[in-house]
Amino acid sequence: MTAPVPSPAPVPALPSGVDPAWLPPAVFRPLGSRRTLIAGTGPLVDTVHGEVAGACDRFGGRVVRDAQEPGAPYDLVLELGEDDPNELGAEGFAVERAGGVTRVTAAGQRGLLYGLFHVVRLGEAVFQGELAREVHCPALSLRMLDHWDNVAVHPVMGQVERGYSGGSLFWQDGRARGSRAELERVRCYGRLLAASGINAVAVNNVNVHETEAHLLTARIGEVAAIADALRPYGIRTHLSVSFAAPVVLGGLPTADPLDEAVRDWWAEATGRVYAAIPDFGGYLVKADSEGQPGPFTYGRSHANGANVLAAALAPYGGTVHWRAFVYDHRQDWRDRSTDRARAAYDHFAPLDGEFGPNAVLQVKHGPIDFQTREPVSPVIGAMPNTRIAVEIQATQEYTGQQRHVCWLGPMWSEALRFRPEGADGPSVGDLARGGGLVAVSNTGDDPFWTGHPLAQANLYAVGRLAWRPDADPRAVLAEWIELTFVPEETPDPARLRSGLHAVLDGSWRTYEKYTAPLGVGFMVQPGHHYGPSVDGYEYSPWGTYHFADRDGIGVDRSQATGTGFTGQYAKPWAEVYESPETCPDELLLFFHHVPYGHVLHSGETVIQHIYDTHFDGVEEVEDARRVWAGLADLVDPARHARATERYEEQLRGAREWRDHINTYFFRKSGVPDARRRRIH
Amino acid sequence: MTAPVPSPAPVPALPSGVDPAWLPPAVFRPLGSRRTLIAGTGPLVDTVHGEVAGACDRFGGRVVRDAQEPGAPYDLVLELGEDDPNELGAEGFAVERAGGVTRVTAAGQRGLLYGLFHVVRLGEAVFQGELAREVHCPALSLRMLDHWDNVAVHPVMGQVERGYSGGSLFWQDGRARGSRAELERVRCYGRLLAASGINAVAVNNVNVHETEAHLLTARIGEVAAIADALRPYGIRTHLSVSFAAPVVLGGLPTADPLDEAVRDWWAEATGRVYAAIPDFGGYLVKADSEGQPGPFTYGRSHANGANVLAAALAPYGGTVHWRAFVYDHRQDWRDRSTDRARAAYDHFAPLDGEFGPNAVLQVKHGPIDFQTREPVSPVIGAMPNTRIAVEIQATQEYTGQQRHVCWLGPMWSEALRFRPEGADGPSVGDLARGGGLVAVSNTGDDPFWTGHPLAQANLYAVGRLAWRPDADPRAVLAEWIELTFVPEETPDPARLRSGLHAVLDGSWRTYEKYTAPLGVGFMVQPGHHYGPSVDGYEYSPWGTYHFADRDGIGVDRSQATGTGFTGQYAKPWAEVYESPETCPDELLLFFHHVPYGHVLHSGETVIQHIYDTHFDGVEEVEDARRVWAGLADLVDPARHARATERYEEQLRGAREWRDHINTYFFRKSGVPDARRRRIH
Repeated sequence: MTAPVPSPAPVPALPSGVDPAWLPPAVFRPLGSRRTLIAGTGPLVDTVHGEVAGACDRFGGRVVRDAQEPGAPYDLVLELGEDDPNELGAEGFAVERAGGVTRVTAAGQRGLLYGLFHVVRLGEAVFQGELAREVHCPALSLRMLDHWDNVAVHPVMGQVERGYSGGSLFWQDGRARGSRAELERVRCYGRLLAASGINAVAVNNVNVHETEAHLLTARIGEVAAIADALRPYGIRTHLSVSFAAPVVLGGLPTADPLDEAVRDWWAEATGRVYAAIPDFGGYLVKADSEGQPGPFTYGRSHANGANVLAAALAPYGGTVHWRAFVYDHRQDWRDRSTDRARAAYDHFAPLDGEFGPNAVLQVKHGPIDFQTREPVSPVIGAMPNTRIAVEIQATQEYTGQQRHVCWLGPMWSEALRFRPEGADGPSVGDLARGGGLVAVSNTGDDPFWTGHPLAQANLYAVGRLAWRPDADPRAVLAEWIELTFVPEETPDPARLRSGLHAVLDGSWRTYEKYTAPLGVGFMVQPGHHYGPSVDGYEYSPWGTYHFADRDGIGVDRSQATGTGFTGQYAKPWAEVYESPETCPDELLLFFHHVPYGHVLHSGETVIQHIYDTHFDGVEEVEDARRVWAGLADLVDPARHARATERYEEQLRGAREWRDHINTYFFRKSGVPDARRRRIH
Repeated sequence: MTAPVPSPAPVPALPSGVDPAWLPPAVFRPLGSRRTLIAGTGPLVDTVHGEVAGACDRFGGRVVRDAQEPGAPYDLVLELGEDDPNELGAEGFAVERAGGVTRVTAAGQRGLLYGLFHVVRLGEAVFQGELAREVHCPALSLRMLDHWDNVAVHPVMGQVERGYSGGSLFWQDGRARGSRAELERVRCYGRLLAASGINAVAVNNVNVHETEAHLLTARIGEVAAIADALRPYGIRTHLSVSFAAPVVLGGLPTADPLDEAVRDWWAEATGRVYAAIPDFGGYLVKADSEGQPGPFTYGRSHANGANVLAAALAPYGGTVHWRAFVYDHRQDWRDRSTDRARAAYDHFAPLDGEFGPNAVLQVKHGPIDFQTREPVSPVIGAMPNTRIAVEIQATQEYTGQQRHVCWLGPMWSEALRFRPEGADGPSVGDLARGGGLVAVSNTGDDPFWTGHPLAQANLYAVGRLAWRPDADPRAVLAEWIELTFVPEETPDPARLRSGLHAVLDGSWRTYEKYTAPLGVGFMVQPGHHYGPSVDGYEYSPWGTYHFADRDGIGVDRSQATGTGFTGQYAKPWAEVYESPETCPDELLLFFHHVPYGHVLHSGETVIQHIYDTHFDGVEEVEDARRVWAGLADLVDPARHARATERYEEQLRGAREWRDHINTYFFRKSGVPDARRRRIH
């Protein structure tokens, strides 16, 4: 009996009108015009086969599976099988070129898939000259996107909480997308994610509402259908669940994690999940946070809470991701002793070592909430005996909501390269090895996936930085530009490249300039968080204050005179942040309350810095808009038009920010602008 | 052939658990225990008959219709028919008492109904001694409640826009309430309104959304059912319509009021309305305002717009109420030359004399938007050749949303007694004779009708002040207290009366003390308008600014140096408001920008006034809560419990206002409280 000849898994077809993002047909030209041998078996090898076959169909190359034609000359060999599987693991691959043959070897199927996309990224270069063997393994084994998608459409928040890209890719009209065409788009999405390095997706909002709670039980079949669509590209599906599920779904009188019936309920429910989805990734939980239920209700710790779910998942190899975003959102602004920045550390650091082996603590990169500028959360460096996942936010909740260009690679890179114990200690990227990198997704059913076409760069960077947290963000951006815009196929590659770098490279700092100054954060409109409102959260229960008065501004978080938050850092950083003299300018108001006349390291006063950066920021947006307009002949017209439209809004918004912030501080400080520009 | 003996219309039965408000059974005791003769025919005479019969059933009296028993001794005669009908009109009545018989005479059926409720209000007193003939006629012939009720429930605003009393009394589950029990409550509502003097109700929101637009045409039958339920108590039904109805409903290419097809469409549509509701009151229109369509779209004036509807209504005796609430709600806060306060006058004063005879211009009492303290709108005194209705807001959008006690009688009374041309000119109440008094309703399907039981006083006052705009609000309140709480039937009438006066009489000024100071207005949270946010609207497009900086606060609306708004008043008031020296303290910041150190007529500085009033206001709430608690033995337990619960929230809210406002101004001015109280 001979084994059946494996057949290629067809490449999902992009629905009409949907942007190809970083996988336009042209990037497959080098691969598709050559002869490729694929060796190995398994569904993901079939996916690789399909990719190569699709490329060859288009560009005239040939692909052969398992040396059906031995001895034939190949340009590329993609093969499963390795002497030392430990070297490459399930996801790594080796690449080398000798004698005119490029060879990609992987020990696991996913490794082969990533090797294929590596070849695509390198393009012609991978078929030139010789290349000594290089091993590529992901630094973080969990590279995840969290979708804050709801099944039911929320009347205010819309379907995707903090979503700016249309409806959900997964859910529509109250159920999982199930038609052939709809699932095809989910497959396309999985393919894009795989090409960036993502290997896990949580398919529903961490705020688990009533409808969505049932995905865990009665509606697990819908999750399974999504998992089926994502699986061919190596993506495991995770589910956000309610900690109160044993009560809400199981009818138990309690969800106490130490209660035996609760434990049994989770075990049984999880067994049924795995019956439906054998490679299910695990649970994601937001507990005791912003109104979600949690273990505090029963006087239990978050470790108790996480561990009951971890125990249920353990037999199947699943993981629980437990969010550390726990704080008092009913704070009294009059009480200066409570500091929201302290909350995660205060809650979680004492629990180090208490979480089960398959429990991951998912920590936002900053101590507050995805502001444009925050220090790194001290929790990340404070729990050596806990698996830590670092959570970043691709969706631009506080960074322009995909109406403003804000390339976040440099911000994430700064966080991932930060060394909590100082220069000799491990980086945040190192510390996330056990847990991974998780990004809140910025995608939806918008034709450009991310609303603003240039926001695709952020999505792309998530996977690439998770693969290599110490990567140079500028190189990641360059890579994204090559794939997405294929400059070589335009009349002026150099102008296109330099134009795209000009509008993207510094866009985060530009955004920072015209919004809240010097790390103080917030100052956004309450609720939707778009646009300026300096006092929007100043007297609110959310714990996000700036304490501006007629003399100065900022939050004293020092140990000497403030909330003591600086003491949550290891010594080197605790010392740096403790004093305004050593604290970096860009975080000054996060850590200190200073007079408007305080002189920064830059040599400017705080108030003049505010005026200058706000005027500069708007000018930078005007420049970027001009540069973008000048790329019209080199960019796909639909993409160009969409971004042009968004630039109008960004410019309007930047001017509103500039004038609101400058007027506010002029009215409060009474200090005129040294350069006598117009403040209203 | 003899005419059939008229039979009493049964009194609608209050659904179980619904508060009787100012018509508890006990107030019918004096009437119900006597012998009454009713003379006259007609449906409203049947209503009067039913009321007396119901009272007699309960209290053992007798009622006779049309002298079926001639010569029998009666205590009370209620009779239709008068020598000079012009004296009493359709709604007036005369009352006298001689020889042990109290006699109420009316020329019209509604007059008889109001005469009956007059007897109820007077109680035993109307059956004592002798009384010379008194004539009671309403000063304003239109006494109207506007319901901002939607048929469809808005996801954010709820069903009733700015409603704080549950869902709509008229609409439920997407249709007019139609069950027997539901309509019974509508009838009870009509009865309560009639007893206060209301004779017109608009049954849907002035913001006419898509669903509600169809009430005018396809769904007029639902409006007719409501009209049928209200008619027995003399209430005519009005409808808010969309100015774009000819386009939206009629499929015409335009809604241009000068277009003949548009004119014809309105005429035909109106004919169908009257076929369904022969006594239909008319249309209410919010045009060119906050996003509603209007004549500006076609380059026509608001008089053009109103007149096309007026012409359609004229053959049937209907009226169009055209709201003067037109302003630019997309204002640029940077543009200090635009002043929202000016808008209504600028738009409408030039149109004086151009409105048709059955068009009424409905003007908010203040120039902005129902703030706790505003001057009287200059429009009211500026259009002698236009029928003006004064619009007040019973629903407490800006005055505590029926969680705070805020008895508005004194505020409305001040506005109605204001004399735009000075002491010798007519009062606002006089000027509203042609158009009437209109209040935005504060009712809903809440068991207490108005959420806060004490807010019923505001609803009651609308009708009573419309009947007599120069009435003493304290007397109106006393009347309401007697009817609602029937002190004489409690163990301690004096304590109950004085307690209720203590918590209500000054409650508007108390609310003013702890909220926005000195007439500056707003400072509320955007959107829902509950709770403080000093800068909530300061940088918004809504045109509601205070311009507070480190030196001072207020809006310069003088002619000399400001927006010139004071020039919209006739000379006496233009002069008073023009200078901070003559401007009343309570309106100072509405008209002037002054330094925090500016000394008020009271002798205090502005900043110290802010501190003092905010501390005092909270103390007054604490006192009121204490007084209310002390009335527990004298008040119906459900009522007492509901108000007690609301007092907790009022106190929390008042403290929040105090601390937010005081902190804001301390941070901005740097001036410490002279009395060294705690400012955060």
